[in-house]
Amino acid sequence: MPFLESLRGYQSRVETALAHWLPAADIQPDHLHQAMRYAVLGDGKRIRPVLVYASGEAFGVDLAVLDGPACAVEMIHAYSLIHDDLPVMDDDDLRRGKPTVHKAFDEATAILVGDALQSLAYQLLSGNQEVVNGKTQLQMLNVLSEAAGAAGMVGGQSLDNEAIGHDLTLSELETMHSLKTGALIRSSVVLGGMSHAQASESQLGALTQYASHIGLAFQIQDDILDETSDTETLGKPQGSDRQQNKPTYVSLLGLDQARDKATELADQAIASLSGFPGSADRLRELAFYVVERIH
Amino acid sequence: MPFLESLRGYQSRVETALAHWLPAADIQPDHLHQAMRYAVLGDGKRIRPVLVYASGEAFGVDLAVLDGPACAVEMIHAYSLIHDDLPVMDDDDLRRGKPTVHKAFDEATAILVGDALQSLAYQLLSGNQEVVNGKTQLQMLNVLSEAAGAAGMVGGQSLDNEAIGHDLTLSELETMHSLKTGALIRSSVVLGGMSHAQASESQLGALTQYASHIGLAFQIQDDILDETSDTETLGKPQGSDRQQNKPTYVSLLGLDQARDKATELADQAIASLSGFPGSADRLRELAFYVVERIH
Repeated sequence: MPFLESLRGYQSRVETALAHWLPAADIQPDHLHQAMRYAVLGDGKRIRPVLVYASGEAFGVDLAVLDGPACAVEMIHAYSLIHDDLPVMDDDDLRRGKPTVHKAFDEATAILVGDALQSLAYQLLSGNQEVVNGKTQLQMLNVLSEAAGAAGMVGGQSLDNEAIGHDLTLSELETMHSLKTGALIRSSVVLGGMSHAQASESQLGALTQYASHIGLAFQIQDDILDETSDTETLGKPQGSDRQQNKPTYVSLLGLDQARDKATELADQAIASLSGFPGSADRLRELAFYVVERIH
Repeated sequence: MPFLESLRGYQSRVETALAHWLPAADIQPDHLHQAMRYAVLGDGKRIRPVLVYASGEAFGVDLAVLDGPACAVEMIHAYSLIHDDLPVMDDDDLRRGKPTVHKAFDEATAILVGDALQSLAYQLLSGNQEVVNGKTQLQMLNVLSEAAGAAGMVGGQSLDNEAIGHDLTLSELETMHSLKTGALIRSSVVLGGMSHAQASESQLGALTQYASHIGLAFQIQDDILDETSDTETLGKPQGSDRQQNKPTYVSLLGLDQARDKATELADQAIASLSGFPGSADRLRELAFYVVERIH
């Protein structure tokens, strides 16, 4: 199957699964449920669920087994966007081409929607699903919750908040992104691999390597698009990092060097998969997609 | 051991465990970690962990096995207080006798601290601990995450937000509290019971009954204290519910009837435990404590 077709397949699959697992809009507390569905469903690149599916498929795992982890990582991602967009954080009004949750509803609702989505991610992953075995499922929960918390995504967001208006070195910027976006991207790839009972430690290590590279490449491409794209294509305000005086790869390296670094990272990501068979081709294609995407 | 002595024992035990599991204040991201420790450690009734310990002890479970679930429920509770206290929610400046997290730090930090504590609760409960078995541990995670989310605590908070300035019937008020505070209290008692591998469905059902009664009694006593106590004793602003025009048991029933109902619920809670041996005496004593406490 051509890459873009399988990408659309993953995206459409996770959309259906998310719609199924999110609480129904017409049952109490309906206001909260409506806001949860508004926040998660619709447009979205779904990079993290796509990585879960592609990584699982590298081991021949059935897609039905991967729906749970795929939805869980997307719910964690969606909640983090909602909280990051709040006025006391990044204060963004536009996300995925529509008003952010606190604009469409209100700030209190946005906080609660984020909180409920985080719970739902773990509820999903701990529920009775088609999974490898109880012990591995527990380990998957441990991987996801660690990646989401103070040692991962939330820790990175905290460093990001403190960085506003300060000069960061390239190494400090990388540390911040390695936590803020990198941790959840790494865990997405690892969760896909863990869904295969026989995945070895060294295979999971290679996947983590792969994911570290594309996580950073993804962030660099984000910074490039923030400079070079437009608000309509991005679905969020163009130039907002510069406006908030946030350090980016482009501000530190310049546009050309940033592009070179992103391509180099995609190559390194693919090299990490040298021990994997052709079934990992989706992951290889994704590495290119991450640095070639236009939104 | 006299009841108050064992209560202090549980409280001191969970404080030590929390201090151990919260990330250290001197490692990066240190600002976030300091705020997490500020939010959780120190004064606190620790009712939910106490219920985990007392419920586990009713089955003779070793206290070391109960530390994980005890800390997990307290972290979920602590995160909910931090988010509830935010200006766009209840806008409270005082909690447990000290400035709320967004006053002592800032609002962005308070949001992130809450988010990180929620992750940490699941990380803890999915980690390698002394537990009954993998399957039960997964079920415990499922119970806790459901109780914390849209079908439980967060759902109740959402109903509470919508109730401000509206007239609620007694039944609507009960539904709201059964979710907002009741769900986590029920899950605390159930998690304690589940920590015993041989706990039967009917025993867990009886524990849920018990917990439903004391959860409601706890809330009624909260409403009574909000009317009759003072800010210093409470450690949070006295009269804040009335000030915010929130419906309470006292506003709906009057003080005397509210007191009668709380006592009646404590009696019903104890009646739910009729099939349990003397090892459940801590739970029985707790039912009285909940309605007799002065803060």
